[in-house]
Amino acid sequence: MASTSSSTLSQALLVRASLKHGSTRLTDHRVSLSACDFPSFSGLRASTRAVVLRHVPKHRPVIASVRASAAKTVDVTTDASLVEKSVNTIRFLAIDAVEKAKSGHPGLPMGCAPMGHILYDEVMRYNPKNPYWFNRDRFVLSAGHGCMLQYALLHLAGYDSVKEEDLKNFRQWGSRTPGHPENFETPGVEVTTGPLGQGIANAVGLALAEKHLAARFNKPDNEIVDHYTYAILGDGCQMEGIANEACSLAGHWGLGKLIALYDDNHISIDGDTEIAFTESVERRFEGLGWHVIWVKNGNTGYDEIRAAIKEAKAVKDKPTLIKITTTIGFGSPNKANSYSVHGSALGEKEVDATRKNLGWPYEPFHVPEDVKSHWSRHISEGSNLEAEWNSKFAEYEREYPQEAAELKSIITGQFPAGWEKALPTFTPENPGDATRNLSQQCLNALAKVLPGFLGGSADLASSNMTLLKMFGNFQKDTPEERNLRFGVREHGMGAICNGITCHSPGIIPYCATFFVFTDYMRAAIRLSALSQTGVIYVMTHDSIGLGEDGPTHQPIEHLASFRAMPNILMLRPADGNETSGAYRVAILNRKRPSILALSRQKLPQLPGTSIEAVQKGGYVVSDNSTGKYPDVILIGTGSELEIAAKAAEQLRKEGKAVRVVSLVSWELFDEQSEEYKESILPRAVSARVSIEAGSTFGWEKIVGSKGKSIGIDRFGASAPANVLYKEFGLTVDGVIAAAKEVC
Amino acid sequence: MASTSSSTLSQALLVRASLKHGSTRLTDHRVSLSACDFPSFSGLRASTRAVVLRHVPKHRPVIASVRASAAKTVDVTTDASLVEKSVNTIRFLAIDAVEKAKSGHPGLPMGCAPMGHILYDEVMRYNPKNPYWFNRDRFVLSAGHGCMLQYALLHLAGYDSVKEEDLKNFRQWGSRTPGHPENFETPGVEVTTGPLGQGIANAVGLALAEKHLAARFNKPDNEIVDHYTYAILGDGCQMEGIANEACSLAGHWGLGKLIALYDDNHISIDGDTEIAFTESVERRFEGLGWHVIWVKNGNTGYDEIRAAIKEAKAVKDKPTLIKITTTIGFGSPNKANSYSVHGSALGEKEVDATRKNLGWPYEPFHVPEDVKSHWSRHISEGSNLEAEWNSKFAEYEREYPQEAAELKSIITGQFPAGWEKALPTFTPENPGDATRNLSQQCLNALAKVLPGFLGGSADLASSNMTLLKMFGNFQKDTPEERNLRFGVREHGMGAICNGITCHSPGIIPYCATFFVFTDYMRAAIRLSALSQTGVIYVMTHDSIGLGEDGPTHQPIEHLASFRAMPNILMLRPADGNETSGAYRVAILNRKRPSILALSRQKLPQLPGTSIEAVQKGGYVVSDNSTGKYPDVILIGTGSELEIAAKAAEQLRKEGKAVRVVSLVSWELFDEQSEEYKESILPRAVSARVSIEAGSTFGWEKIVGSKGKSIGIDRFGASAPANVLYKEFGLTVDGVIAAAKEVC
Repeated sequence: MASTSSSTLSQALLVRASLKHGSTRLTDHRVSLSACDFPSFSGLRASTRAVVLRHVPKHRPVIASVRASAAKTVDVTTDASLVEKSVNTIRFLAIDAVEKAKSGHPGLPMGCAPMGHILYDEVMRYNPKNPYWFNRDRFVLSAGHGCMLQYALLHLAGYDSVKEEDLKNFRQWGSRTPGHPENFETPGVEVTTGPLGQGIANAVGLALAEKHLAARFNKPDNEIVDHYTYAILGDGCQMEGIANEACSLAGHWGLGKLIALYDDNHISIDGDTEIAFTESVERRFEGLGWHVIWVKNGNTGYDEIRAAIKEAKAVKDKPTLIKITTTIGFGSPNKANSYSVHGSALGEKEVDATRKNLGWPYEPFHVPEDVKSHWSRHISEGSNLEAEWNSKFAEYEREYPQEAAELKSIITGQFPAGWEKALPTFTPENPGDATRNLSQQCLNALAKVLPGFLGGSADLASSNMTLLKMFGNFQKDTPEERNLRFGVREHGMGAICNGITCHSPGIIPYCATFFVFTDYMRAAIRLSALSQTGVIYVMTHDSIGLGEDGPTHQPIEHLASFRAMPNILMLRPADGNETSGAYRVAILNRKRPSILALSRQKLPQLPGTSIEAVQKGGYVVSDNSTGKYPDVILIGTGSELEIAAKAAEQLRKEGKAVRVVSLVSWELFDEQSEEYKESILPRAVSARVSIEAGSTFGWEKIVGSKGKSIGIDRFGASAPANVLYKEFGLTVDGVIAAAKEVC
Repeated sequence: MASTSSSTLSQALLVRASLKHGSTRLTDHRVSLSACDFPSFSGLRASTRAVVLRHVPKHRPVIASVRASAAKTVDVTTDASLVEKSVNTIRFLAIDAVEKAKSGHPGLPMGCAPMGHILYDEVMRYNPKNPYWFNRDRFVLSAGHGCMLQYALLHLAGYDSVKEEDLKNFRQWGSRTPGHPENFETPGVEVTTGPLGQGIANAVGLALAEKHLAARFNKPDNEIVDHYTYAILGDGCQMEGIANEACSLAGHWGLGKLIALYDDNHISIDGDTEIAFTESVERRFEGLGWHVIWVKNGNTGYDEIRAAIKEAKAVKDKPTLIKITTTIGFGSPNKANSYSVHGSALGEKEVDATRKNLGWPYEPFHVPEDVKSHWSRHISEGSNLEAEWNSKFAEYEREYPQEAAELKSIITGQFPAGWEKALPTFTPENPGDATRNLSQQCLNALAKVLPGFLGGSADLASSNMTLLKMFGNFQKDTPEERNLRFGVREHGMGAICNGITCHSPGIIPYCATFFVFTDYMRAAIRLSALSQTGVIYVMTHDSIGLGEDGPTHQPIEHLASFRAMPNILMLRPADGNETSGAYRVAILNRKRPSILALSRQKLPQLPGTSIEAVQKGGYVVSDNSTGKYPDVILIGTGSELEIAAKAAEQLRKEGKAVRVVSLVSWELFDEQSEEYKESILPRAVSARVSIEAGSTFGWEKIVGSKGKSIGIDRFGASAPANVLYKEFGLTVDGVIAAAKEVC
């Protein structure tokens, strides 16, 4: 592993982050900052050893009536009227920002301001001046439409990402305060939410990462990994299936440091939740293996909220759901407790009425001095917390140099030098194999050299071939292991992996199912792409080549559907070298996810393929032309590259000059220089034939109007794979016939 | 409404079904039979009035120890040894078929044979010779991989769709017994399952349809709609989020005639469910508002299963989950209770051992005579059941002619003549409006003329504009109403609508969310397309035009992703006439689903658009060319057609001959004659510019290599819509500039 001065590294990255963020965000979002990019490790050497006590203000009527049984982990008590003022500050920052934008969701921030205040002011441990500090508590606003809650809290806490002008720019072009929380726009936001249910599943991933790293790296004398994950979710999140999937896993895994605050406000967009949501959430969560607490007065019951969080922290073996009954739009005399306050500005009149009602004399966006002063301590406290942890890490590094090196790699995302050499290489003499099996070789090779590599399948490990043989299963009592068992929960799996990736730059999760079932997890995959997380999707059974399971299991449109999606790499390797090459690309691309489409069926090791060439997306596998241009170009991907190669052999015997091109990743090929692309697919050669066992949609771009695409533009069928290939015309003869037609 | 002799109709359709099925299935699956096509209504006039008693065999040791409190609705008791023999017949038909195919899933049929036998032999009411009889009990095998269970049962029950040769052809090209149950291949299969969790959600839809129709049409003296819906689901289905979504709704709606048998066998593909699934399913379902029963011995506890079903039928106000603990692969001495029996043939040796173990001396595929004879009664009984119902319907028709006409339309799928005239028409003088609002006009117009039209939104009714104003909400106590309130459960919503559509040919459900959240329900939408159900997907907020909600809410790749999907219509109307035209197409297409992408923002009523032209998919909106060909063709869809039209105006002022084409549905355009397509997009005109607020992926096919596509190949951003259109270059000036470049 490259040894870098940690101190320098940390500071440099922080500077780079802010510079980059400022300079690029307006022009191109695709290159903008990803929260996952910036290592939170600083490793400053023992500048202080003093234990930092959290702030205890002077005027202190003790108001928290803590349950005797709960551990005392909420450390701050504050003058009750100041708390109320802080809470109202949060409410009005949200009201004012939405009002100015004439767009947004004031209802949730107004109702959740008390729990938000308690979390950010009293409970959570973070450093506002380094949002990427490794050991921070994580917070996820699963009900992402309420993002003004989070922006208000980040603003009060002193994060540089949300200044007053950012609040005033809420939902405007180029602002750091977009309409839903986006990790790549706003340092301090851990994950991208808004699509409901995703955030709570991300939180499960964050808590999983903590539990795993703690189990691997903590020592009896040094618990170097130790933080909580908090989430706020609403009724909408609760209704989404993905939330149930993820929460079932959280219960199964016993993620005791996951604390979910459920904003039970009885209102969703269509009105009272009575019209569609009358289940007992508590009983369901008990069934899922969670500890459940109900805070009946979430509007003003600060002590109840505090006590519930304490109780939750005391329960170590189960995640906790705190159901907190609130009033949406609390404080608005005419709109509270109605859907009208959910997703629209209050309107000038109602803003005034709310100001009166809550006794708020201030101008829009004003933070009263005493509130400001109260919150200002978080900057020094956060800095102290990080310094304290840094000294702890320095000790850890002295005592446990090997573990420290591994952990550092996970924290920084700097991989051990030469890791790529672990990937297997092949020659045409090597026996043929399904790319799903070749994939397993790669997964196992990578797990040996990348400390943060872990993953699993949605109950298809033995079909997807995803088991890491050197490791056991990550389970409640064996969290140090690296095989994740997701059960049949594709959507939850994807979102959990997004959360895992966002925990630390050096953690790389992979997850697997049949390629067709990307349909179940597409919303999570899209968020991988949007939020710039480098999740690796291992998708086997990638075509009709899976055979008898039939059309419900046979992907047709899936390659095209992902090629159309921004910021994601769709890779379809043809053999061993290309599979290794695809993994190399996937590991190197930490700012965009990769999907590997892999075969169930055996494929030969083809002459001409290479690991390195995969990074170009498309390249020449073979060419017998002696002049400048071939007579015809045959283009294939994955399992059909073999067919293209065989057709080329035949055509060459008949005297044709034939080039065979592997188009393993369209996105990577698109990114190459015009010269390179011309060298592979010269404009002068319009005689082109493509073959791919999937929809031909989009192939016109590659073969042009004079070329031909062989594919499948209907659903598949249930029959042995070889029968299907023949019946659907995906044959060497078919390619030859098409080639003769075009040239 | 057209008045047809019901008797003639029924018979004719049945003949057409079998002919069509036989003659087309091998050549083109896309034209093959959809179960949803064939009206189950026969309406035979009162051939018998006798009450049909279900079979009571002669040798009868009464074995059912029925709980006293349960209603006596399981009517048949049979010699225990014959039951055992029948159950083993089911097991060996599954074993033998999988063995012959060397592919398939024997474990579930072996474990679920007892419950399967009881359902099809003792409990369910159906007519094997008319699988489409309207009032039949519905059965859904949600654990679709166990399809040999269903094929064996259909075979024993006397369905013509599963003869012995069909069993021998299991999973082969062109067979009626594909690898997972497919309604369009096998009459008797209600819905297409395999992708886990879908089936139980379909069952919720079927039960919803029954409850709705019963509430609308039943009279105190004539309960003309009266059947149960049964489903078998496994651990895999239970883990899927979609199942939780749908079951939460089933509990909320109080679907008392839905009975789900949960095959609790503790084995999934990855091994014991202990590794990923330790929640309490019972407690979760209690939380969801279900009645829950546990049958501890599902292997041989026939009486327990019978009693549980009786109890379930007696509970009228809640759906029932019967957890039935079974042994996967029951009877296999070496493979039972292991994942190895889940998804592979037993192998010759183990088949022999199982034959020995269960005392089964017969040849493969043999049905013992006494078993055959026992089951044979279902043909006459089924015929009698239908005849009885027909006479009941004849009475109903006499007493309630108006209701009978409506119900008949729902049963047959024959819509009232002239229904299309209800759709609103527009002229350019009409005020502009968002297509989501115009859509609401269409929905409300259609609900007035189509008796089977109903639907709703996933908690976005007031944004999707989907409320039917003349109706109330379908709820537990108001099931006669037609506004469905799905809550934030997109995936469940889609699958429930698939189930509703499959109930009767004349029921047309629509469902709605933001277009971007098709990602949440894509697996259900794909099954709409595959299983040929004509669900209408009302997808609003169809581009960056939604503005401030930002990239998590802005579809980019979605149009392309559905254009690549087989057998689905992707429609993007530009104004009022096109919206009406899109609904006309959607209603007429009962064998494929339609997705309508609709704008949040206001659009003008454009000159040149028309309702009728939409059915061609693409057409000329305006053209000022005087010669044969225009100088340039501008092509737009949806909200961007306006931009194309404005650019054309400008270019015409500059002396250009410009054609504007609306490409409202690529699929429909593709299906037109070559002549028609040439008349719209002449090959000779390579100067083409497209504009669409989405991915340009696929547009090369339309604009050719010399054309230009204006679109968005990155994620969107949070800002007002007009700012986004400008920043992303979707402007009149942009189109003009591109047009000048290409011509």
